[in-house]
Amino acid sequence: MRVAVLGGDGYCGWATALYLSKKGHSVAIVDNFIRRQWDHELGVQTLTPIRTLAERLNVWQDLTGQRIELFVGDVTDYDFLSSCIQNFGPEAVVHFAEQRAAPYSMIDRKHAVFTQVNNVVGTLNLLYALREFRPDCHLVKLGTMGEYGTPNIDIEEGYITIEHKGRKDVLPYPKQAGSFYHLSKVHDSHNIMFCCKIWGLRATDLNQGVVYGTITDEVALDEALINRFDYDEVFGTVLNRYCVEAAVGMPLTVYGKGGQTRGFLDLRDTVRCIEIAVLNPAGRGEFRVFNQFTEQFTVLQLAEMVQAAGRELGLEVRVEHIPDPRVEAEEHYYNAKHSKLIELGLKPHLLSDSLLDSLMNIALCYRDRIDASKMMPQVNWRNARNAPRPGASAEVAASGPQLTAVGANKERTK
Amino acid sequence: MRVAVLGGDGYCGWATALYLSKKGHSVAIVDNFIRRQWDHELGVQTLTPIRTLAERLNVWQDLTGQRIELFVGDVTDYDFLSSCIQNFGPEAVVHFAEQRAAPYSMIDRKHAVFTQVNNVVGTLNLLYALREFRPDCHLVKLGTMGEYGTPNIDIEEGYITIEHKGRKDVLPYPKQAGSFYHLSKVHDSHNIMFCCKIWGLRATDLNQGVVYGTITDEVALDEALINRFDYDEVFGTVLNRYCVEAAVGMPLTVYGKGGQTRGFLDLRDTVRCIEIAVLNPAGRGEFRVFNQFTEQFTVLQLAEMVQAAGRELGLEVRVEHIPDPRVEAEEHYYNAKHSKLIELGLKPHLLSDSLLDSLMNIALCYRDRIDASKMMPQVNWRNARNAPRPGASAEVAASGPQLTAVGANKERTK
Repeated sequence: MRVAVLGGDGYCGWATALYLSKKGHSVAIVDNFIRRQWDHELGVQTLTPIRTLAERLNVWQDLTGQRIELFVGDVTDYDFLSSCIQNFGPEAVVHFAEQRAAPYSMIDRKHAVFTQVNNVVGTLNLLYALREFRPDCHLVKLGTMGEYGTPNIDIEEGYITIEHKGRKDVLPYPKQAGSFYHLSKVHDSHNIMFCCKIWGLRATDLNQGVVYGTITDEVALDEALINRFDYDEVFGTVLNRYCVEAAVGMPLTVYGKGGQTRGFLDLRDTVRCIEIAVLNPAGRGEFRVFNQFTEQFTVLQLAEMVQAAGRELGLEVRVEHIPDPRVEAEEHYYNAKHSKLIELGLKPHLLSDSLLDSLMNIALCYRDRIDASKMMPQVNWRNARNAPRPGASAEVAASGPQLTAVGANKERTK
Repeated sequence: MRVAVLGGDGYCGWATALYLSKKGHSVAIVDNFIRRQWDHELGVQTLTPIRTLAERLNVWQDLTGQRIELFVGDVTDYDFLSSCIQNFGPEAVVHFAEQRAAPYSMIDRKHAVFTQVNNVVGTLNLLYALREFRPDCHLVKLGTMGEYGTPNIDIEEGYITIEHKGRKDVLPYPKQAGSFYHLSKVHDSHNIMFCCKIWGLRATDLNQGVVYGTITDEVALDEALINRFDYDEVFGTVLNRYCVEAAVGMPLTVYGKGGQTRGFLDLRDTVRCIEIAVLNPAGRGEFRVFNQFTEQFTVLQLAEMVQAAGRELGLEVRVEHIPDPRVEAEEHYYNAKHSKLIELGLKPHLLSDSLLDSLMNIALCYRDRIDASKMMPQVNWRNARNAPRPGASAEVAASGPQLTAVGANKERTK
């Protein structure tokens, strides 16, 4: 199939593009490299030394004979995006091209506004481009389990049957997102559902859990294909951060009591889930929601697992509870359904099996690149303005939203 | 109390500002006159000949001795908005300053993007301005009953208790909005709920039904104070349109079968509801939702009421069913709760009592200003691009979003 991967230079996007290419699909990457720019803004870098996309794509073609097409530009620029859709003619579009870090969206007002405008406008543009030029193309959109929050009832996959005062309906599952970023995905979900209804588009919303790991079969082929591994407080996800902390002998930083329960999955399952969605498209007019994770853990459980894994490697690992920079329940009920992708054939990788190989060993391997000053949380949900990241000058810190707004401005003023 | 009315030059905003001023509150209007600009874009005008805001405010002061302060600018410009909040120091902010027409948001991609960016960014800016400068100020936000859509169960006021698999929680009522405009209000509601949680802000979301009428005690004092009366297919609401159609002897244009049921209220109840909300503020951290309407009707019932009222005035009124330009259920269950404002003291005006005075007579009085070419729907939900309004050149039709994006751009590139 012809599959366009928007945001294909990012963490999940890069692994997905290679996986689909390896499987014989015709793949195009659409990206504007802004993810790399945010590293500069924050004064951080991925633990793994990633190459330029041009180099990555050349090495991939040399190794496999597969060519991945590249379209460089911003999805908030409609002329650019719609020309990509027309030129490439995808049968499926996998949409990762959003600002995806909750702490980034909570830095200050500009970052909150940037995140919501960037994500919502990019997705609106994509919906219009599909409506106008590829109405039968299947939209595979990355959502997040964070859209649901932590309700005191079981979380279903997108919809819930509600019986109320003697009547019944199947309605969208109520949303209680926990950051301006997570809220942007809630907004997207509502917008996409509406477009499926009015235009008969077909869409799958993948409410993904927290992804861990960096190794997939494809990136393992050559070091030039290595994927990102973010561990900083803004873009680093909890498990990656713990592993890096363990590798440098820092205590693992558990936010608050650590009873925050979330869904998690291995990056190798992310790419397989995307393939499953692509191969089993939603019907015309269908807005389908899958919960995309394989296991649920509390963040304290994860710390204890990393502690145990560290012990096997001869590392002394301490666990420390620090004040939670987020506003969230630190102990709560959590039971989220995630059977639809399993029913379609997903065979999960379990964390217990991959913790050492795909996480601890990567952290140890690139230990020299770790900047120990980047792990402690600086972005507090309770503040309207959080200071620029350490190591980044105020000027640099402000540049992300500025530069990235250019695309959005252009398309609205032209 | 000190009350800022954002969007105070618009239909509901103007009536509200005068009502609160008459009641002895210190009122400020914040507006950028964009509502008047949209009339130019669409080549339409309000049935009633409204004056400039400067003239309106002078006449109001001459008649009542009450001065209403004026801040001219765009709420998507944070420097402007936050300086208003700091300078005026409101105890309550009533936020009407959004693009409020579903058909306008469905014209094409630019109008959809404009509507969502304008509404979401304006509200985000307001939330940040309150957090930074007036954290105890009560936000009274205009939402819409259209956020709920038409579920097959009773609609509650903002939240619903859900029992599911032996557990129970009170969760935000599921949203199924029917246009990019209605979706923008859904996005706002989610954003506001989150800010109440993380920052302890106090907010009331008024999910308003369709407002009708133009006469309030205050605007009736002098013709220079007259309020808008929109009847065109984009900004005109259904009942106003019917009355105008009756006045010029056109058939009433019922969309589809006409079984679309909605909540309605008299403009005199809108202003009273706002006052009730302002006088009974939400608690710190509370996100409160009131359904603000007084009666529910199908659009066919309304047509029949206008037909009967026309007969009393000696008018021959025909009812015609035309294809529904919207994608919506034309027959459905609808039972929406609306008791919270009644419990706080609202005494509804009933449509049957005001139809002749506040609607039919206004339509007849300004009959000479009616442009009969503006009533038939040109904006179809099924199209990605709808033609510019008749009478407006393509260039003019595109100018609304262009001009208004300037504020949004400025704040993101500075």
